[in-house]
Amino acid sequence: MPTVRLALAQLNVTVGDLDGNRRLIEQAIRRAQAWQADLLVVPELSICGYPPEDLLLKPQFIEDNRQALSRLAPFATNMVALVGFVDQDQRGQTYNAAAVLANGRHVTTYRKQCLPNYGVFDEPRYFTAGSQAVILSIRDVRVGVTICEDLWEPQPSRVLAAAGAQVVANLSASPYHVRKLQARQALFRGRARAHGLAIAYCNLVGGQDELVFDGASMVIDSSGKTIGLAAQCRVDLLIADLPVEVPRRLGRSRSPVIPVLGRRRERPPLARPAPQRVLGPVEEVYEALALGLKDYARKNRFSTVVLGLSGGIDSAVTACLAVDALGAEQVVGVVMPSRFSSQETQDDARQLAGAFGIRCHTLTIEPMFEAYLKVLESIFANRPMELAEQNLQARIRGSLLMALSNKFGWLVLATGNKSEMATGYTTLYGDMAGGLAVIKDVPKTLVYQLARWRNARGPAAPIPSSILTRAPTAELAPNQRDQDTLPAYETLDRIITAYVEEDRSLRDIVRQQGIDPSTARQVITMIDRSEYKRRQGPPGIKITPKAFGRDRRMPITNQYRAP
Amino acid sequence: MPTVRLALAQLNVTVGDLDGNRRLIEQAIRRAQAWQADLLVVPELSICGYPPEDLLLKPQFIEDNRQALSRLAPFATNMVALVGFVDQDQRGQTYNAAAVLANGRHVTTYRKQCLPNYGVFDEPRYFTAGSQAVILSIRDVRVGVTICEDLWEPQPSRVLAAAGAQVVANLSASPYHVRKLQARQALFRGRARAHGLAIAYCNLVGGQDELVFDGASMVIDSSGKTIGLAAQCRVDLLIADLPVEVPRRLGRSRSPVIPVLGRRRERPPLARPAPQRVLGPVEEVYEALALGLKDYARKNRFSTVVLGLSGGIDSAVTACLAVDALGAEQVVGVVMPSRFSSQETQDDARQLAGAFGIRCHTLTIEPMFEAYLKVLESIFANRPMELAEQNLQARIRGSLLMALSNKFGWLVLATGNKSEMATGYTTLYGDMAGGLAVIKDVPKTLVYQLARWRNARGPAAPIPSSILTRAPTAELAPNQRDQDTLPAYETLDRIITAYVEEDRSLRDIVRQQGIDPSTARQVITMIDRSEYKRRQGPPGIKITPKAFGRDRRMPITNQYRAP
Repeated sequence: MPTVRLALAQLNVTVGDLDGNRRLIEQAIRRAQAWQADLLVVPELSICGYPPEDLLLKPQFIEDNRQALSRLAPFATNMVALVGFVDQDQRGQTYNAAAVLANGRHVTTYRKQCLPNYGVFDEPRYFTAGSQAVILSIRDVRVGVTICEDLWEPQPSRVLAAAGAQVVANLSASPYHVRKLQARQALFRGRARAHGLAIAYCNLVGGQDELVFDGASMVIDSSGKTIGLAAQCRVDLLIADLPVEVPRRLGRSRSPVIPVLGRRRERPPLARPAPQRVLGPVEEVYEALALGLKDYARKNRFSTVVLGLSGGIDSAVTACLAVDALGAEQVVGVVMPSRFSSQETQDDARQLAGAFGIRCHTLTIEPMFEAYLKVLESIFANRPMELAEQNLQARIRGSLLMALSNKFGWLVLATGNKSEMATGYTTLYGDMAGGLAVIKDVPKTLVYQLARWRNARGPAAPIPSSILTRAPTAELAPNQRDQDTLPAYETLDRIITAYVEEDRSLRDIVRQQGIDPSTARQVITMIDRSEYKRRQGPPGIKITPKAFGRDRRMPITNQYRAP
Repeated sequence: MPTVRLALAQLNVTVGDLDGNRRLIEQAIRRAQAWQADLLVVPELSICGYPPEDLLLKPQFIEDNRQALSRLAPFATNMVALVGFVDQDQRGQTYNAAAVLANGRHVTTYRKQCLPNYGVFDEPRYFTAGSQAVILSIRDVRVGVTICEDLWEPQPSRVLAAAGAQVVANLSASPYHVRKLQARQALFRGRARAHGLAIAYCNLVGGQDELVFDGASMVIDSSGKTIGLAAQCRVDLLIADLPVEVPRRLGRSRSPVIPVLGRRRERPPLARPAPQRVLGPVEEVYEALALGLKDYARKNRFSTVVLGLSGGIDSAVTACLAVDALGAEQVVGVVMPSRFSSQETQDDARQLAGAFGIRCHTLTIEPMFEAYLKVLESIFANRPMELAEQNLQARIRGSLLMALSNKFGWLVLATGNKSEMATGYTTLYGDMAGGLAVIKDVPKTLVYQLARWRNARGPAAPIPSSILTRAPTAELAPNQRDQDTLPAYETLDRIITAYVEEDRSLRDIVRQQGIDPSTARQVITMIDRSEYKRRQGPPGIKITPKAFGRDRRMPITNQYRAP
């Protein structure tokens, strides 16, 4: 059976870095040529990075992206390269497009037909939908070109199959969430079987603000079998020989097949690659968070990060991630005790810093706290200490971390989790202060799983077991426990999933999940009332199907109360 | 010539307050009936408020909105009411719709055809576009129904005219920006003349997070003449008798005319209303800001606001707006001097507070500042005082205001202007702290115009003239002046308008505006690098064609540097 050699280059491009991205694509072309590949696929919008958002409204940006593309074409010889870029027609309509580069020139262009407009996606804000299939003849194999969503919708594959395509190439920028790889595989397998089409899927890899692209590019044959899988959450080049049956008769189609590459010379077959190990469900979250953190720092030109170490589980896991992503020498921990901090939590914080070998400073917040209380004394007029005083402590800590950031150019990592962000159990400008909130989309129950998984991975267990077993506390008042204010985290996280991620009503949550009505109502009210805080929070890395941020766009002013 | 009596009720509804909004519409129906109106038009999506954003993804919300609508229908007797609501078909497709209520029932539904997806708008995220014109026969006059964008695009009016409509009714939620009324009038006049159609345009009024809807509903006759104009930035009910020529022959159309209301009984003619005074360009900005502030406070259940008074122009104008919007007794000023505060600015701040009769507290920031410096001494290790120490002062002030907010339930108003927000000449969690940044979209040069206009309006001039004449300073370092760091505000604001609002390239700005290249480059770099700050800023009220926030969606991680 004839084979076509595919090269799927899952690149880590940077939004706006047109020169840098062009060089990465050029390198991918050279490497694919060295492998004698017939077809190279790179991710969606590789030239400009994804998502470029309102940069697309700048005419100069689109012009510069086209110039970067034109400099790439001469390199595409003896193979075909599909390169994602922003196309614009003479009427000024803009398209999410794939350039077909072959024989040293830009042969033709495919324009994305299905533009997603849900979740984190806003493509119709920028792009006009294409309407024309593009089928290429490459080494006598007919390859249809698609971009990301085109493969999630049924229509484009159907059209390509009807027009006689044997392979669907897909340039993608598909953001990660838990078990997304398995969802993609199931979907693509179904498409392949339904139409007898092989699929060459190249996904982006890397972090971009709230999003992580997890790579895991794959080749699926026409029977639905995965014959090649690239790494998750790492740059990778997947080379695979795809056997293709003798061409079927060309179906009726308005899409003529464009011959771009003739018969190939002989070449040695590929060694069979070792199968890629698929990450477990907790491990993949950990790797996605580490990649998101690493890229946020790197692409925004930070080398060092700083975070407060409270002796709790959230800052412990955030510190682990930072050390794994950036190296211990690039992480600074700060212990900031107050009158309410126990010796145990301070000891745990320092033990953690010691286990990682990170720099650790201790800065007491008491002098500032006392100064604030004194200055406010006459206005507060002996009212009891409560929320205002608790938030002051958190804000002093936030200000100390920001002072270090300003003085030394360090990136402040906020350490709040999704359960806190949802309920507003967090202080705006206090523990919410920072450039990146690494575990902002991680529910508390999953934070514990990440900690246990990381301790089990070894070599040693960096997180002290007392951090894993102590009842969570903010230590902003005497003998305070999270569970004084919040329901048990297992219950809380189930309500958050149902209300935030699944948009279920209070009534459904109570009926279907057997949750106590007053608990469910209390949590939903907390979620609804905290929107103003979330709006001012730092970006965090999306790992669930629906994250706070661009994924969930709720009004602040909102008097709807779910019945 | 026969006339149709129009009632345009520009309501101030609240997002999510289905019961409250329903009651407002019910009152409007009763008032229109008392005026013997033939047709009542209320704003787009009046039942649920605009924009409801991701509330639309909650099935229960859509169901509740339909129930609210069904309770309204019985009130619509002896007239027709067009009521904006969220419609859903049996396949679960959601529409931005207008219910035609007549004879006590919901007669038919029009579904918006043109869904805006630019600027602040995300309608295709939620709605499917309708495809069917709806023409009603009301007292022998043929009225076509449209919703907002349908009137901005040429096609729907053309179709209605061809089908024999004489009047186009439009339910709108059109956000304010400077001189938007004039833009709407010019557009509608053109539509009216092009097709010989009269226009009955009802716009929403009120604030919703970043947006202000300015009302100014209008009736334009088929010659393009404005025969009725409702108030700007206030709730109003415009009643107008529109003369309509003898019905033309029905054009060819797939849209049958739906008879909803027969010949009317005799009624006394309307007294000719006094023409509405149109606000001047500075005055309208002032009124829009006051409305936005008032509604943000009211709809989020705040009665009192607190703000820092620095003795500068920004806090002075913000205080003016707060007093005019909420009343002096609901505004608290706080003077927070440091070692760098001059006697003059402190005096000016207190004079301003006195002129308004607002409560004013003085809280020194020195004890906290000294405590921070002492605690950080060992880490800062005698490095020179600079940005970190400046930001600390701003963050102490932010923390004090937030402490008052937490203790007394006051809404903190941030006082930064657009020129600062653009260049990042502002401290995250410091002067940026607050629930609402009232003048966030007001360029500094316009802040001065607002101050002068407000002083001129009287009765007395509340803003001390020394505030208007003193060189702007942040007073965070000895003898600091804004112009040490920034170009002159006239130049700065021109660059911001060109780069932010018009998406011009650096090259264009230099060539077309004759701005010094190094100044332009410096400002653009500052704008690009401050995205991370803006992302965490409080919402502010949009008054320009492009505001920071939902209007301009730039990536934080962005290595594009405009050539």
